Amino acid sequence: MVSEEKLIERVRRQFPSSRVGEAGSFRAARRSRDNEFGPRAGIGDDAAVLRPSRGSEWVVTTDAFLENVHFLRKVHPPKAVGYKALARATSDLAAMGARPRYFFLTLALPDACAGAWLDDFLRGMARASRRFGLILAGGDTTKYPVVVTSLTVLGEVEKGKAILRSGAKPGDLLCVSGTLGESELGLRLVQSKLYKQKRWAGLLKKHLYPEPRLAVGEWLAARQYATSMIDTSDGLSTDLGHLCNASGVGVIVWEQKIPTVKIPPELQRPGAGCTWSPPNKGLDPLELALNGGEDYELCFTVPKKLAARLPRELGGIPITAIGEITRGKRAFSIDANGKSKLLLPGGWDPFRRR
Amino acid sequence: MVSEEKLIERVRRQFPSSRVGEAGSFRAARRSRDNEFGPRAGIGDDAAVLRPSRGSEWVVTTDAFLENVHFLRKVHPPKAVGYKALARATSDLAAMGARPRYFFLTLALPDACAGAWLDDFLRGMARASRRFGLILAGGDTTKYPVVVTSLTVLGEVEKGKAILRSGAKPGDLLCVSGTLGESELGLRLVQSKLYKQKRWAGLLKKHLYPEPRLAVGEWLAARQYATSMIDTSDGLSTDLGHLCNASGVGVIVWEQKIPTVKIPPELQRPGAGCTWSPPNKGLDPLELALNGGEDYELCFTVPKKLAARLPRELGGIPITAIGEITRGKRAFSIDANGKSKLLLPGGWDPFRRR
Repeated sequence: MVSEEKLIERVRRQFPSSRVGEAGSFRAARRSRDNEFGPRAGIGDDAAVLRPSRGSEWVVTTDAFLENVHFLRKVHPPKAVGYKALARATSDLAAMGARPRYFFLTLALPDACAGAWLDDFLRGMARASRRFGLILAGGDTTKYPVVVTSLTVLGEVEKGKAILRSGAKPGDLLCVSGTLGESELGLRLVQSKLYKQKRWAGLLKKHLYPEPRLAVGEWLAARQYATSMIDTSDGLSTDLGHLCNASGVGVIVWEQKIPTVKIPPELQRPGAGCTWSPPNKGLDPLELALNGGEDYELCFTVPKKLAARLPRELGGIPITAIGEITRGKRAFSIDANGKSKLLLPGGWDPFRRR
Repeated sequence: MVSEEKLIERVRRQFPSSRVGEAGSFRAARRSRDNEFGPRAGIGDDAAVLRPSRGSEWVVTTDAFLENVHFLRKVHPPKAVGYKALARATSDLAAMGARPRYFFLTLALPDACAGAWLDDFLRGMARASRRFGLILAGGDTTKYPVVVTSLTVLGEVEKGKAILRSGAKPGDLLCVSGTLGESELGLRLVQSKLYKQKRWAGLLKKHLYPEPRLAVGEWLAARQYATSMIDTSDGLSTDLGHLCNASGVGVIVWEQKIPTVKIPPELQRPGAGCTWSPPNKGLDPLELALNGGEDYELCFTVPKKLAARLPRELGGIPITAIGEITRGKRAFSIDANGKSKLLLPGGWDPFRRR
């Protein structure tokens, strides 16, 4: 049985960048009082004291990551659980064009997870924090029968430059970063137990270690090219609905332009074992792209006159125009034959059964 | 079965002060772009955009409140659960001397709780938020077999004025606000099922609706009288240990000076039914005060030369000197006969069995 203090010590060890004193001493934090980069107080005090940069606003988001809802302890490696929990939350900052600064970890877990599992979980999270430029500034731990985590992530953006969901205008081009449906493909492999076959390991990457598109978001915010933005966490069809609702607009999506994931022929065949949905029909890349969640790509709108200035890729991530914002308040998709149909939210809603 | 959107709508209705547009529209938020008091974006966008006040630092804390650990759904009224979840987290701001500004709610709950239970929970939380001056700026909801909440609370403090745990100096007086052991008494009544008897209802108040000592904290921070501060969330003996460790000092506590809770004689008698600990010995006010948790009083240190300027009460809350900081690194208590003994942490540690 570990004590809470020992547990916090374990956390501290994995996040040396947090730089707030040694165990039980905050004199180091006192010394760093005028350091603009580290928190003045953090892990081990009642709360963290953070100094904002001049001329910036804080962007704050919070995100739960729960055993049996967002991950399965028997299937998902603890490193991936730790990495993904932080990546998901950080993606919300990318979707505002903000630069990550600090995060807070609420972690409840069973005794059985307080040893090797926790260390791997923290290692994965520490890797993510280094990658995204985040400093652990505090948190809360307790014992619980299941693993429950909640992440709060704070970032900064130049005053007035955050990109909201609400600025899309009729005529704007709709763009996405990366490819869509990749993470859902990984999830289907997990659900159909195919993930155990080594040959599919590469297809699991985005499901296990998603990459928030921070550089793309910051690039767009700095230039103020995007009128609105959201990250594709629940699936394009659902997230587009959020963006259109917030902006009071509609959208037409050109199905053929959507950058879908390449599915190996063996998995596309009906009865390949990966048939969770649509039942017995094999996997459809378009369906994965429209309704599959957790890609954490950015979906944003750009005024047409600025579209020419948009590069084809940003930091190695392709940018693709996939539709156009309309005056009507509904979302339509147009297929290869020019036939349009209503695009209904078919992605993830935790309170609805699929 | 409710949808996530409907659930968010329910939350929004209880927190009109959040002032961020109507459902699905952030144009209101756009309009309030230059409003220093409301968030520029919040509920319904990917993240909240918050503008810090000039010359201030952010104080941020996060706190989990979990069914079966921190509350029992069958015993604790949902209003109290909502109120207390936010009060606990806000107490960490009081302990830094910060003024509350915004909060974020992570809420996972079963379908069975998504109706009347949720409304009452939110009503209690809304009451707390008004009382403490907090605006709901965002959050995350999902479905889960048990009720899991995590609160993130952001406050502000004038640059450099936050009171850390780490500044106590030998010779400083140790003071506490209010009375200690009151919340633990309520917990014992709950554990012994006596809470169902109406005559004890008054004794449950602090257990159900604790009051973060915000005014006391802000008063001390503004004048810079306190060298260190912590809130008594885990029990005085345990929290004092944290404060002494952080400051690298020891302490002597005068048992007779501790403002203990008055226990009705019926409950003090052995075998009164309220005998959870110590077994069969009735309730001891001193034991409740030293090792009982969740009082959320402030425990702080004041240089002796400033002690005379400290009022006997602040905003109606008594302030009592109960000890003195020492050079040695250990904590002692001195009883009525002048006998001293080691004061060991006997409060709450979620990873240790009592």
